Amino acid sequence: MGKKIGCQTLQFDSPAYIRDGYSIVGSKEAKGPLTEYFHETVQDNYYGEKTWEKAEKKMMEEAVINLIKANLLNENNIEFFLAGDLLNQTISSNYTARTLGIPFLGLYGACSTMVESIIISSIMIEGGFASNVIAATSSHYGSAERQFRLPLEHGNQRTLTAQWTVTGAGASLITKDQAKIKISFATVGKVIDMGIKDASNMGAAMAPAAADTIVQHFKDTGRNPDYYDLIITGDLGEVGKKLTQELVQKQGYDISSRYDDCGVKIFDKKKQDTHAGGSGCACSAVVLNGYILKKINSNQLKKVFFVATGALLSPCIVQQGESIPGIAHGVAIEKI
Amino acid sequence: MGKKIGCQTLQFDSPAYIRDGYSIVGSKEAKGPLTEYFHETVQDNYYGEKTWEKAEKKMMEEAVINLIKANLLNENNIEFFLAGDLLNQTISSNYTARTLGIPFLGLYGACSTMVESIIISSIMIEGGFASNVIAATSSHYGSAERQFRLPLEHGNQRTLTAQWTVTGAGASLITKDQAKIKISFATVGKVIDMGIKDASNMGAAMAPAAADTIVQHFKDTGRNPDYYDLIITGDLGEVGKKLTQELVQKQGYDISSRYDDCGVKIFDKKKQDTHAGGSGCACSAVVLNGYILKKINSNQLKKVFFVATGALLSPCIVQQGESIPGIAHGVAIEKI
Repeated sequence: MGKKIGCQTLQFDSPAYIRDGYSIVGSKEAKGPLTEYFHETVQDNYYGEKTWEKAEKKMMEEAVINLIKANLLNENNIEFFLAGDLLNQTISSNYTARTLGIPFLGLYGACSTMVESIIISSIMIEGGFASNVIAATSSHYGSAERQFRLPLEHGNQRTLTAQWTVTGAGASLITKDQAKIKISFATVGKVIDMGIKDASNMGAAMAPAAADTIVQHFKDTGRNPDYYDLIITGDLGEVGKKLTQELVQKQGYDISSRYDDCGVKIFDKKKQDTHAGGSGCACSAVVLNGYILKKINSNQLKKVFFVATGALLSPCIVQQGESIPGIAHGVAIEKI
Repeated sequence: MGKKIGCQTLQFDSPAYIRDGYSIVGSKEAKGPLTEYFHETVQDNYYGEKTWEKAEKKMMEEAVINLIKANLLNENNIEFFLAGDLLNQTISSNYTARTLGIPFLGLYGACSTMVESIIISSIMIEGGFASNVIAATSSHYGSAERQFRLPLEHGNQRTLTAQWTVTGAGASLITKDQAKIKISFATVGKVIDMGIKDASNMGAAMAPAAADTIVQHFKDTGRNPDYYDLIITGDLGEVGKKLTQELVQKQGYDISSRYDDCGVKIFDKKKQDTHAGGSGCACSAVVLNGYILKKINSNQLKKVFFVATGALLSPCIVQQGESIPGIAHGVAIEKI
């Protein structure tokens, strides 16, 4: 049995484990500083398909299928598939679930999806309902830009607060059987909105939610920042990372010496012209399943608080005058 | 501890309970045969707002807030809020979560969301992570039609297989503390696609998934149709209901004497010109939280297998040549 501690945190007493992860990225991410950590890089951002949406779906499919194969399992060994993505009606997830034929629970948490899916997978395992669950998400620069902002064919100029949606997919195999990495705590986020309306400033829209979840995690668990080797947010980029660090500091926690952001790490700001950094569901997903899990497995990291951050941006409702709410979910991941 | 039985079914040994539900419907639903069962009817389908999207969001908010009040609770007593809806980026759910300030897990299961949210709520409770969770969903005829088909202003003719998206919202209070109605089993669906591409024939798109989940539930639990007083699907309408009954019959289970569909029940086909019946996330949500819970509480029903059915329709990917997959999740609801 697990339990809830404090206001928003789940404690896993017989923890779920991250047995393995898989990450696929597109051509731009493959040129970035983390390239050596990804399992697969794709040079053709259409991935042999005719549209970006179909390319994104294929990336999620490949990530999940290759993760299953790499662990010498097959689809019948995976009891549930939990996924979500940025596309309207979560196309990539639904069609990947159709291909897999695994019982499916669809999620929408925008770019917080990687952690949301891991949290619900862990709850299912701790509750006794499953032994092997796959959690996955994806995003694609082309499909996201045209859905949320402007079609790439416009060739419009991007503001300096804008982020570059990561093309790729990540999947995690969450198991009941002990593996080397355990999930000890999860902090479920609240929706927080400080009034940002600019779809090209997602970092600022998400920072208050990220800070809230990080601070709440410390309060609920009694842990301090120095418990972790790394505290890493999903896709706040340069702007959101700076804001988050300040907001957390104001609450009395100094995370500066061990804080980073997947959106900052995934691209080389100077060479890759990505402005404020990477974003998209895949940003945190490929950094987790590529970089972080490999660093933990090689003992370069041992205790990580991983916080996926989502901007719940809806072009329709923003056009009706609403601002963009954010949400952030965190999981404590620890080497055994 | 719960357990998984058979291929897709969760068994709740220390069950979660449905303590109460709340249903709000629009003006057309208020003229239908189930009107006496709904908690609140709204004559103005804009609900005092300027857009259908904002009206829908307000309906979800009101349903949740009124459910909390009716049970003499406040937001602080509800540990998690689980919701999803049909709108792109699940607007209604995200903004309701912002209003509530309750830790939030966002879902996308199209019209299967009412059961998907109840299943995950029940898992959280059985796992020891929560005592009070609210599961909710909503839909609106105006917002759904313009997003998925054509703006209502077009005044286009509707085919006879078309369904009428229900305007409304439903919310369920799922508790650890014993109440009169328990959730004994949940069957998580697979995504199934038999090639339907017509956005005005959702019943046919969903029927194979509904039949699969119903048959799998019988196989996994060892129960037969006659265990239940009522087996009811979410929003298949006349076309999908007929197909589902046939598909289940082909698998050797005769459900005809106790099978119904929320989409068939909610409108008067002859008087209300709704063609194949009702649809939308709210269809099953208001029938469950209005009609079914009240019938169970008054002992007119005792054992219900409630199957919410979702057509994972995406206009974008259907325009790219894809067909419409379906999914169905079921919960066994029993009077104690």
